[in-house]
Amino acid sequence: MEKLEKIYQGKAKKLYTTDDPDVLWVEYTDQATAGNGAKKAQIAGKGELNNHITSVMFRLLAARGIPSHFIRQISATEQLDRRMAMFPLEIVMRNTAAGSFARRYGVEEGKELSKPVLEFFYKSDPLDDPFINEDDIEALGLAGRDQLDIIEAKTREIGKALTSIFDSIGIRLVDFKIEMGTTSDGTILLADEITPDTCRLWDKASGKGEVEHMDKDLFRRDLGNIIPAYQDVLDRLRTLEAGRPAEA
Amino acid sequence: MEKLEKIYQGKAKKLYTTDDPDVLWVEYTDQATAGNGAKKAQIAGKGELNNHITSVMFRLLAARGIPSHFIRQISATEQLDRRMAMFPLEIVMRNTAAGSFARRYGVEEGKELSKPVLEFFYKSDPLDDPFINEDDIEALGLAGRDQLDIIEAKTREIGKALTSIFDSIGIRLVDFKIEMGTTSDGTILLADEITPDTCRLWDKASGKGEVEHMDKDLFRRDLGNIIPAYQDVLDRLRTLEAGRPAEA
Repeated sequence: MEKLEKIYQGKAKKLYTTDDPDVLWVEYTDQATAGNGAKKAQIAGKGELNNHITSVMFRLLAARGIPSHFIRQISATEQLDRRMAMFPLEIVMRNTAAGSFARRYGVEEGKELSKPVLEFFYKSDPLDDPFINEDDIEALGLAGRDQLDIIEAKTREIGKALTSIFDSIGIRLVDFKIEMGTTSDGTILLADEITPDTCRLWDKASGKGEVEHMDKDLFRRDLGNIIPAYQDVLDRLRTLEAGRPAEA
Repeated sequence: MEKLEKIYQGKAKKLYTTDDPDVLWVEYTDQATAGNGAKKAQIAGKGELNNHITSVMFRLLAARGIPSHFIRQISATEQLDRRMAMFPLEIVMRNTAAGSFARRYGVEEGKELSKPVLEFFYKSDPLDDPFINEDDIEALGLAGRDQLDIIEAKTREIGKALTSIFDSIGIRLVDFKIEMGTTSDGTILLADEITPDTCRLWDKASGKGEVEHMDKDLFRRDLGNIIPAYQDVLDRLRTLEAGRPAEA
């Protein structure tokens, strides 16, 4: 596999074409951003940790029958993924009130929701990734009704699997953001990444009324260094994966 | 019917109990507000016009098989309505991009949408009436899934009827906001008001690339006096209603 032209530089990843038109070469960088890029920093080691973490996550999901764009990890900071036409949507699922949901509706952060809540945000830097509903998505032509039904069903399935995976390693999955796209044959697949940059992860060992953040809120809210927390997430995931050799 | 205690003072209406626990005495006031009350004015004659207009609208809808809380008009500025437990939701339907939709998604105002778009906003002054989706509504306990299905179906039916009514009097219905509630026996009914305060109405006689606003945008955007425009809407509605005596 040969790395060719850089086609996209995201906030935390660089994407390159390869000699296979259906395969992307993805490099995880050390850049951390928050507030749609308003806050930015280089944090040595973040790219490597996230590349490792998302590789484990995609393998664990595959072992549970949930496919993704992930092909294989090729270095500490790089992986190969299937090339897809991405929906310009951030797909958010929430188990617990936090972040923009808590602020928007005046709900205390940490309140368990009566059922997992699905939200969409329109990926647009100039518009600041606005909240969007399914009718709006259809009207703007961002996805069709049939596609939204598939996206919704897949996201609920992914949510159950992720909640169970994190629960089994002592982590409360508060919410997560995923992205999806279509492969060249039109199949809708999970893509992007699943890391502490894109999930709110609270250590279940947190004391009563306290939250031990193991995610990007440490950076967003200036609560501490993300690296030991991300390393802890990776260590627990590796222990889990090692206990299930058939899934590797 | 006796007017008793004032139970609610809204931005444009005062609500009083009556000697019938299922009936409210509603007085339309001359207050105009915009931006969730940030801009405020008294505009003589507005209360009377809106009370007349919404009374005609509710009668026209009833004649099309769409019931509402409206019982009858009792004076120039007053009407009797069924008392209901209101959902704390603004229910918005859009035929054409305008207002917050156009700003939120960077769409040019006036762009016809491929299908009517339904949006909800959580009625909360301290939270500034945030945009909300159906999952959020359920999670916050503002309405149940079954209720949302009924609200959605009724709103689409109301949207078709309103679009047709306004079209027949030379007015383009760009979008509208309604509210619903449940009666004491649990029936979900259209409530609140249908006026140029709650609908965007563009004169179909507007020149190419021009918009003759016949609604509250005249006030919101300092485009002119609302009174002649609201009077024009009422005059056209009365002509329509007069032509259909069976519906009166």
